[in-house]
Amino acid sequence: MTRVIVLGGGTGNFAVLSGLKKYPVELSSIVSMADDGGSTGILRDELGVLPPGDVRQCLVALSNSSSLMRSLVNYRFENGGLGGHSFGNLLLSALEKVTGSFEKAVEEMGRILFIKGKVIPVTTHQVRLKMILNNRVILEGEKEIYLSQEIDKGYRDIYLEPFPEANPHALDEIAKADYIILGPGGLHTSLIPNLLVEGVSEALVKSKAKKIFVVNLMNRKGQTTGYKTSDYLKEIIRFIGEDIFDWILVNTQHPPEELLDVYAEEGTLVTNDLANDRIITAPLLGKLNEGVKKDLIKRNLIRHDPDKLAEELMRIVNPL
Amino acid sequence: MTRVIVLGGGTGNFAVLSGLKKYPVELSSIVSMADDGGSTGILRDELGVLPPGDVRQCLVALSNSSSLMRSLVNYRFENGGLGGHSFGNLLLSALEKVTGSFEKAVEEMGRILFIKGKVIPVTTHQVRLKMILNNRVILEGEKEIYLSQEIDKGYRDIYLEPFPEANPHALDEIAKADYIILGPGGLHTSLIPNLLVEGVSEALVKSKAKKIFVVNLMNRKGQTTGYKTSDYLKEIIRFIGEDIFDWILVNTQHPPEELLDVYAEEGTLVTNDLANDRIITAPLLGKLNEGVKKDLIKRNLIRHDPDKLAEELMRIVNPL
Repeated sequence: MTRVIVLGGGTGNFAVLSGLKKYPVELSSIVSMADDGGSTGILRDELGVLPPGDVRQCLVALSNSSSLMRSLVNYRFENGGLGGHSFGNLLLSALEKVTGSFEKAVEEMGRILFIKGKVIPVTTHQVRLKMILNNRVILEGEKEIYLSQEIDKGYRDIYLEPFPEANPHALDEIAKADYIILGPGGLHTSLIPNLLVEGVSEALVKSKAKKIFVVNLMNRKGQTTGYKTSDYLKEIIRFIGEDIFDWILVNTQHPPEELLDVYAEEGTLVTNDLANDRIITAPLLGKLNEGVKKDLIKRNLIRHDPDKLAEELMRIVNPL
Repeated sequence: MTRVIVLGGGTGNFAVLSGLKKYPVELSSIVSMADDGGSTGILRDELGVLPPGDVRQCLVALSNSSSLMRSLVNYRFENGGLGGHSFGNLLLSALEKVTGSFEKAVEEMGRILFIKGKVIPVTTHQVRLKMILNNRVILEGEKEIYLSQEIDKGYRDIYLEPFPEANPHALDEIAKADYIILGPGGLHTSLIPNLLVEGVSEALVKSKAKKIFVVNLMNRKGQTTGYKTSDYLKEIIRFIGEDIFDWILVNTQHPPEELLDVYAEEGTLVTNDLANDRIITAPLLGKLNEGVKKDLIKRNLIRHDPDKLAEELMRIVNPL
């Protein structure tokens, strides 16, 4: 079976994985370990565990368990000392404590959730994502970087501290892959952190897999303000060391103006400035459930449709 | 198959259930809902859930899942806002939130743990156990009663507030049972609270099941100081309304003196002052794992052996 790797972290991966899991491919999700916000950040600080949040989302995306189990894993406690914790994060962290290994914990949780495919942390070392801005201010942690409004003014460096070795299983998967899909996802907070792990960029360059870059739908104000397709590509290539992509998948569908208005303070639509053989354009927007519109965080209003995304990706993987 | 009910709560039930699960009987565990100490108390207060602790212990006792799953469910977080919480309690509480029902949560967790038999909360109403002492001091909650050193001076009343209806499934099971086993367990904190639920004592009297009372090994100082078998029986009968027991199972094995010394500040050995056809005496002590002796809480040092207990009970249930 064709081996497909999805490389990223956070909610971006969710759409790709939950779309692709319906197709007969061998799926592996390689996940960034830089998350340190919210429930995940508290668990890292208080229990010394590896960040469960992004891994949890990928596990749920690949899960074939009952909808009750998926609701359970996504459930967030609302009050008291547990307030804000996702149950799935607690499950992963308790499994890490009981098994003594984050990787074993991920495997066990995969079994509990009947996942299709594999979820592999890009490194099993405890790291912090840091960024040095042009004004020499150091942003400490993924959360601070995510909230910063100054990244679009440029930065001197972004790195993981301490500089971590890659998880050998992740490098193995990259070497054996037929297709590698990078993105969508937070450019500096979910995608680049994978490339900052020792050996990952080299493995990507060396791998004979076909590589696909899925460009984000929306820019994030203060971070990727006014970015075009070429800007995303440039920034990613800078960390990989060379342009490895065989295809670049770009959305062409325009969201309703009223939605863009609501979203305006978060950021604007990514515009496409590239047109050549490897640029694939397609309408990729998810449907908006009007009923839940008001409950959604703005940044989740405009998102990829898992089925459309998977359909386009599978056109590349299994051309007719 | 012979239907056997174990009525109680807390660690006392654990020995009976984990012993009996190896025999071909249809097991049901009816569990007190009065627990409000530790992790369970915090969850009740902060999340408004029903008390998970005793139910969790019964589920683990009946579980046929991997030892990893059982370790996971028994795992206690050590630090921060989660410190002291048993993972199994969090699982039950999250399931209660997601399913909207404590009973469904117990059922689901039973499925996750591959339990043999059923675990049934004696009531599904939120209640507090209260006790009015002779000096009119009111002890609020199972934990305060458990810690009190004045109960042996007598008390005016013990009750659940508000006075709860029984879980109809619990009454059903009692009606259909072939054998009902009460105890061992904290007399005022685990056993009697079941009898304070509306309709339970009446159902016990009415049920055609043979009834067995398993007497505790040790007295608890300040609570059942110097109690003999007849005292336990008298106190239980007071709440049931009549003497319903066909057999009374009493331990005859004497623990090593050095162990009784260590235990002395907790309480003394129960002595047996009854001898007649329905009194069954047998050596029922669990082996002490010398290695873990120092780590154990004193009250857990002297306990029933699940296998010996089950063997004696099965001699009654399935006489040769």
